[in-house]
Amino acid sequence: MLVVKKFGGTSVANKERIYNVANRCIKDYKEGKDVVIVLSAMGKQTDVLIDLAKDISDNPSKREMDMLLTTGEQTSVALMAMALNALGVPAVSLNAFQVAMHTTSAYSNARLKRIDTERIRHELDQRRIVVVTGFQGVNKYDDFTTLGRGGSDTTAVALAASLHADSCEIFTDVDGVYTADPRVVKNARKMKEITYDEMLDLATLGAGVLHNRSVELAKKYGVQLVVRSSLTEAEGTVVKEVVKVERMLVSGIAADKNVTRISMIGLADKPGVAFRVFDALAQANINVDMILQSIGRDNTKDISFTIPRDATDEALKVLEDNKERLTCQEIKCKDTVAKVSIVGAGMMSNPGVAAKMFECLFNSNININMISTSEIRVTVLIDETEVEKAMNAIHDAFGLED
Amino acid sequence: MLVVKKFGGTSVANKERIYNVANRCIKDYKEGKDVVIVLSAMGKQTDVLIDLAKDISDNPSKREMDMLLTTGEQTSVALMAMALNALGVPAVSLNAFQVAMHTTSAYSNARLKRIDTERIRHELDQRRIVVVTGFQGVNKYDDFTTLGRGGSDTTAVALAASLHADSCEIFTDVDGVYTADPRVVKNARKMKEITYDEMLDLATLGAGVLHNRSVELAKKYGVQLVVRSSLTEAEGTVVKEVVKVERMLVSGIAADKNVTRISMIGLADKPGVAFRVFDALAQANINVDMILQSIGRDNTKDISFTIPRDATDEALKVLEDNKERLTCQEIKCKDTVAKVSIVGAGMMSNPGVAAKMFECLFNSNININMISTSEIRVTVLIDETEVEKAMNAIHDAFGLED
Repeated sequence: MLVVKKFGGTSVANKERIYNVANRCIKDYKEGKDVVIVLSAMGKQTDVLIDLAKDISDNPSKREMDMLLTTGEQTSVALMAMALNALGVPAVSLNAFQVAMHTTSAYSNARLKRIDTERIRHELDQRRIVVVTGFQGVNKYDDFTTLGRGGSDTTAVALAASLHADSCEIFTDVDGVYTADPRVVKNARKMKEITYDEMLDLATLGAGVLHNRSVELAKKYGVQLVVRSSLTEAEGTVVKEVVKVERMLVSGIAADKNVTRISMIGLADKPGVAFRVFDALAQANINVDMILQSIGRDNTKDISFTIPRDATDEALKVLEDNKERLTCQEIKCKDTVAKVSIVGAGMMSNPGVAAKMFECLFNSNININMISTSEIRVTVLIDETEVEKAMNAIHDAFGLED
Repeated sequence: MLVVKKFGGTSVANKERIYNVANRCIKDYKEGKDVVIVLSAMGKQTDVLIDLAKDISDNPSKREMDMLLTTGEQTSVALMAMALNALGVPAVSLNAFQVAMHTTSAYSNARLKRIDTERIRHELDQRRIVVVTGFQGVNKYDDFTTLGRGGSDTTAVALAASLHADSCEIFTDVDGVYTADPRVVKNARKMKEITYDEMLDLATLGAGVLHNRSVELAKKYGVQLVVRSSLTEAEGTVVKEVVKVERMLVSGIAADKNVTRISMIGLADKPGVAFRVFDALAQANINVDMILQSIGRDNTKDISFTIPRDATDEALKVLEDNKERLTCQEIKCKDTVAKVSIVGAGMMSNPGVAAKMFECLFNSNININMISTSEIRVTVLIDETEVEKAMNAIHDAFGLED
């Protein structure tokens, strides 16, 4: 039995927490399991290092930035190995060079290509706990790289896949994946199980527990993920391919307030116009999400779409600059909207799910601005002041508290 | 033309100093030289990391300690490369893995075995300044090691030897090697040149500018060392095999107050007694330096010797414990003594040098306790209150200010 256990920066922020993690891992070790620990840098250490670099240079090279940042995880793994040793358990820390975590060459945003397992296997065979640096890799030039946001989760999942681990536990500051954000929906329920696709939709939609890339990787290699709390012994949520036979129609609700709706009014109704709009935004690296196209007056059409709220100013600038070329009469912008989504693998075979959601919102007197759907997800755009009311109403309507 | 330039922790302790070093190195680069920079960890960073480890464990494993400490130099080289980049010069930082600095496996006190130069050569060929971590290496297990005290000097010299560098500059907080400590002897003179052997004797005797091991290595591989200030542009002292043909008899004077004299009175005058004394001390890892044996009363002998002052308590304990076995009647100890030495390759062929030193001390009314000599060195043990007077008198007697 081999387990990979990943702890984030807050879980190793000080001596007390390092020992807390060490003790948890020793429990598994004493049950006879092979234990691999993946760690992030301690607390705010990565931010401290970034500030150090920014003090030296306004625009430090990404290659040197990664060289600098990787010292963060190396520090935490060395200290964790010392703590495990102090508790009488043999342990060894390894960085990306020592494991040999091969990545693409893109500094600051590399992707894992291949992980050598020989050294880790060797250490596990000596009955040592192996403590591995998350977030970092080595590229073909023998340079350090980092994996970008959520990188340590990705390291853990990739290690679990390479080592054929029996389980990959991701420890966070919440104790699992909930049917809705417990701070918003009082009777939100922690899920015992969820499929990769549901988790992916929830992650993308802002549930914020696991990073997409790690879930995609887990799905690809069939790694069973467990999301659980680093503070309590609660069981957590298992993310895996097939869950129980009788599925809930809807497994969770997510909300995302980082949304602005932009409407382009009176566009010429001829081919290529929509393409030009989205091409201009794509070139400015702005992600467009929900899209609604409708017939306007006098042979024109209107296009509405949503973008991340923090890209509002830049998007408006791009569109205003191209207003004439885009044949647009008026640009409207509303940044007080929010997305609310229901996710559930059971929806696929139940066409009534979306209708039930709309009916529930109608009964609560909530106006729907836009709608988008996928096989396992229905998303509506509503006014952001109504998010709480909507989430609670939907949670009740689908009986998620049971 | 290839130069290796080594800067210690104080030289890179903050942004201003990092830029100061960067600018100095860019000057060489712009003259067309290939430049390799070797750095220690910033300021007191190594002490900070040691404290972090001691907080986690009273007795951290040396392997994990080295894993932790090596983050210190990695941080400074990354920041230095950023500073060089910010000044418009291409630069790349490399750690012990990337260079491939092979060492023995002894954690915390490893010795360099071999340095691969391929990566560094490749980077230099691209006209990049290469910034290398000092003090660290990688052993046959692919683990980080550190080189112990003065380790970064050793890294610099070994790199210079491997790369066949034209010169290896060691930047310190003094601007060269002096004929005597300038704080003690007012008219001490900075030497332009000195041989490896003279430097070794001065280093061992407490001149404290360069670490022995780096001088030994430089001698072995014929690396021309330059000791110079990181704060001023002064020329510094060149350490090399052969210096000018007409040599000074004496090139420098060193003093060392870390000395205690111990006398064993009334030892049985039979074979093996002296051996037993020094064997007992060796087993306690205590270094014995000057030794004087004399005939005592009634078929006994007395042995006096010096040890480092900080080992006094331990040495006395070892000797007292073995007093009977050593057939010793009395143990005397004096910890207010000091060694004063004159060093100079010219002494070898000038037997009058020692006599001149003794005469000079006699004229100054300074009592000599013990004497020890080598081919290029004469050391006397005197009362520590007379060190300043002795050094100035000898400095004048040999005309070292000229």
